[in-house]
Amino acid sequence: MNLKHLNQAPTEVDLIIEARWLATAVKNAPLLEHYSVIVQNDAIVDLLSTALARSQYTSADTVSLDEHILIPGLINLHTHAGMNLMRGIADDLPLMQWLNEHIWPAERAVVSSDYVRDASLHACAEMLSGGTTCFNDMYFFPQATAAAINQAGMRANLGLFVSEFANSYANDADDYLQKGFESHDSWRGNSMISSSIAPHAPYTVSNRTFEKIITYAEQLSIGIHTHLHETRDEISQSETQYGVRPIQRLAALGLLGPNFTAAHGVHLLPSEIDMLSGHGCHIAHCPSSNLKLGSGIAPISSMLKNNVNVGIGTDGAASNNRLDMFTEIRLAALLAKGVSEDPTTVPAHQALEMATINAAKSLGLDDKIGSIEIGKKADVVAIKLSDITISPCYDPISHLVYTCGREHVTHTWVAGELRYSNGLYANIEPMELKEIIQKWQPKLRQHKQ
Amino acid sequence: MNLKHLNQAPTEVDLIIEARWLATAVKNAPLLEHYSVIVQNDAIVDLLSTALARSQYTSADTVSLDEHILIPGLINLHTHAGMNLMRGIADDLPLMQWLNEHIWPAERAVVSSDYVRDASLHACAEMLSGGTTCFNDMYFFPQATAAAINQAGMRANLGLFVSEFANSYANDADDYLQKGFESHDSWRGNSMISSSIAPHAPYTVSNRTFEKIITYAEQLSIGIHTHLHETRDEISQSETQYGVRPIQRLAALGLLGPNFTAAHGVHLLPSEIDMLSGHGCHIAHCPSSNLKLGSGIAPISSMLKNNVNVGIGTDGAASNNRLDMFTEIRLAALLAKGVSEDPTTVPAHQALEMATINAAKSLGLDDKIGSIEIGKKADVVAIKLSDITISPCYDPISHLVYTCGREHVTHTWVAGELRYSNGLYANIEPMELKEIIQKWQPKLRQHKQ
Repeated sequence: MNLKHLNQAPTEVDLIIEARWLATAVKNAPLLEHYSVIVQNDAIVDLLSTALARSQYTSADTVSLDEHILIPGLINLHTHAGMNLMRGIADDLPLMQWLNEHIWPAERAVVSSDYVRDASLHACAEMLSGGTTCFNDMYFFPQATAAAINQAGMRANLGLFVSEFANSYANDADDYLQKGFESHDSWRGNSMISSSIAPHAPYTVSNRTFEKIITYAEQLSIGIHTHLHETRDEISQSETQYGVRPIQRLAALGLLGPNFTAAHGVHLLPSEIDMLSGHGCHIAHCPSSNLKLGSGIAPISSMLKNNVNVGIGTDGAASNNRLDMFTEIRLAALLAKGVSEDPTTVPAHQALEMATINAAKSLGLDDKIGSIEIGKKADVVAIKLSDITISPCYDPISHLVYTCGREHVTHTWVAGELRYSNGLYANIEPMELKEIIQKWQPKLRQHKQ
Repeated sequence: MNLKHLNQAPTEVDLIIEARWLATAVKNAPLLEHYSVIVQNDAIVDLLSTALARSQYTSADTVSLDEHILIPGLINLHTHAGMNLMRGIADDLPLMQWLNEHIWPAERAVVSSDYVRDASLHACAEMLSGGTTCFNDMYFFPQATAAAINQAGMRANLGLFVSEFANSYANDADDYLQKGFESHDSWRGNSMISSSIAPHAPYTVSNRTFEKIITYAEQLSIGIHTHLHETRDEISQSETQYGVRPIQRLAALGLLGPNFTAAHGVHLLPSEIDMLSGHGCHIAHCPSSNLKLGSGIAPISSMLKNNVNVGIGTDGAASNNRLDMFTEIRLAALLAKGVSEDPTTVPAHQALEMATINAAKSLGLDDKIGSIEIGKKADVVAIKLSDITISPCYDPISHLVYTCGREHVTHTWVAGELRYSNGLYANIEPMELKEIIQKWQPKLRQHKQ
């Protein structure tokens, strides 16, 4: 018991969340039962048993969740929110046909600041309803994505996209960088948005541009987020063009380090896993997307055993087709077991850590988010474990990972604000989302075939 | 236009389902739009455009589903419904520890006719709400499962379980067989329940018993359903004990044939796939369970290319932990692409066929169920494709497979009767399911550790 509260009136706070279970996502921390999260402004100011909390705190906004588990807001470590309206636009196709005949023509036809804002708002709505509070994005027009994030009330790390190829957003690598820095400046002082430089991939970015990116990332003290070793083709193309595999090229350029997050990492040699580990790099594992595009299965058991920090991402809706972290967490855990033929690998609590604290580390935000701890931001999600079709529940964390779906999320708080609850958004009208679909789907459909 | 209806009053029928889309699951059949299913008694008597249907038929029970797709009821090709209350009782463990320290002690403690009825009713509720209308089960006390099925109003093929090991249900293989035949006789005349003989696995059933099973299956004209090549251990154990791999042993005994359905088939040599194909055998692919137990990944791309008939199953809730065919269909399609590194393998329509018509073939029920065709039983499921978080929808079948979840199922009809709709069951009270959990979970929990 906290002595300062003895014989004192309870302290008035902004929000109290009382829950049957609380999984903090702190490594080796026990599951807490009948626990309360005390929130003042945007932060968690106390964590204590509900019995104690009721004697020490009071709030006009007290939410009691008798059949629920609280977890840290999920962090989707690799997204292209601006592609959300291309969900299912082309499935079951070879990668190059998918890109050349469907995705790129559709992008050329519609991608604009307006389109990216609308698609990103739709993605934010999808993610909030599935318990995702923060995402690590990479797409054109990041200021438009930022506008959507501000409306939705989410948190994000936005990639300042760079490639050598012109499109409606930028003309060349320097133009991409210039526009990226303007974006970065535009959200300075916004506590909900941070930046990475996001070179698209080794096959679309030159050595000269990568060298500039390293310099700028150091100057701005921000991370680097790129696609890496997603497909065998990417690797053989690099061997032809550069004489080395992409990761060797990036290592030689000096790109690898603790501020470097690579999406995918499907095809990695043991020596390359050691290299990632040695440099303190991070992997955004995207299991559904890697399977769906026929890329393969990333060796995450080996990565985790070798202390590579692995988070989980959905990738964009054109290659998943759900921005659903519950599906990805379950699949990441199951796939690791199946491939390694070891059912003890990636146990449920580790899968949850990948989707929360590991991702926060990758973004350099682990002092703010990724776990439920005093002093961190109140990004908290409630999941109801008692729906009859998913009963009984013996172990709440394993239940969360192997049994629940995103449809069991009931509340999503970001920075202490309730942004989604039981089908409704604080700042997004369902009609606005419908109008977004009605506006863009016909334009996109023209480029489907 | 059907001339018989010209200038005639519309025909009164039992049920008309009008839908925006209809996927029949007939091979190479196009997706139908604005179509109606006309039901009389338990069967589909007509299929025609909604415009025509409105002039030709009338029904007091007309359901209009403007944003939905109709599909044939899903068929779960490998279940242990009686294990539904052991969902998540022990996760992230090696197989033998899982069985010896958790599953078998729990089973010894509770398995009885009462327990199996209750757990099976819970499984039926879970399956109906997720669009499953028929399942291929294997567990003790099948008459208790039949009682649950009759209450729920589902369809099932029940395994007459056989092993050499005594338990509360039977003393030895002959006793299992005897009890199985009593069960089989008990549901004669019940159009919703059929039987297979279900020897548990090659490692729990002797040659002598397998030989009897072949004879009895022939006499009764019923199928055989067993576990096969689920783990590497099973195979090496057979090599030690019998000098051959399990499938070779079963082939030598004469077990393989068009009435033989093997669950799993994770570890199969190319020659063994040829053997399954040559004998017209069926595989019940259980991707989640195979991954979760660390068994591996079944080579279904190769099986399908070699014309092995492959259906999809969830396995029991102790190893999945969802009896959710949507998750399994999606995973089957994605996993096949990822393992083969070919995104064109198992396209969406084929994944749907695996979960419907292929499974019906495996059960010898493809004259009755597995597709939406005139003359077949009206086992029909409606899925709403328009929920905002899963929008937009470009291709309804790919949307169904890659984007939807079981939570988007709105109606489940079995034999023309609406058994589940929007959270409610025709014949199961939520309170009954809650009481089942409250009754059995404490008894099962005692044996968790």
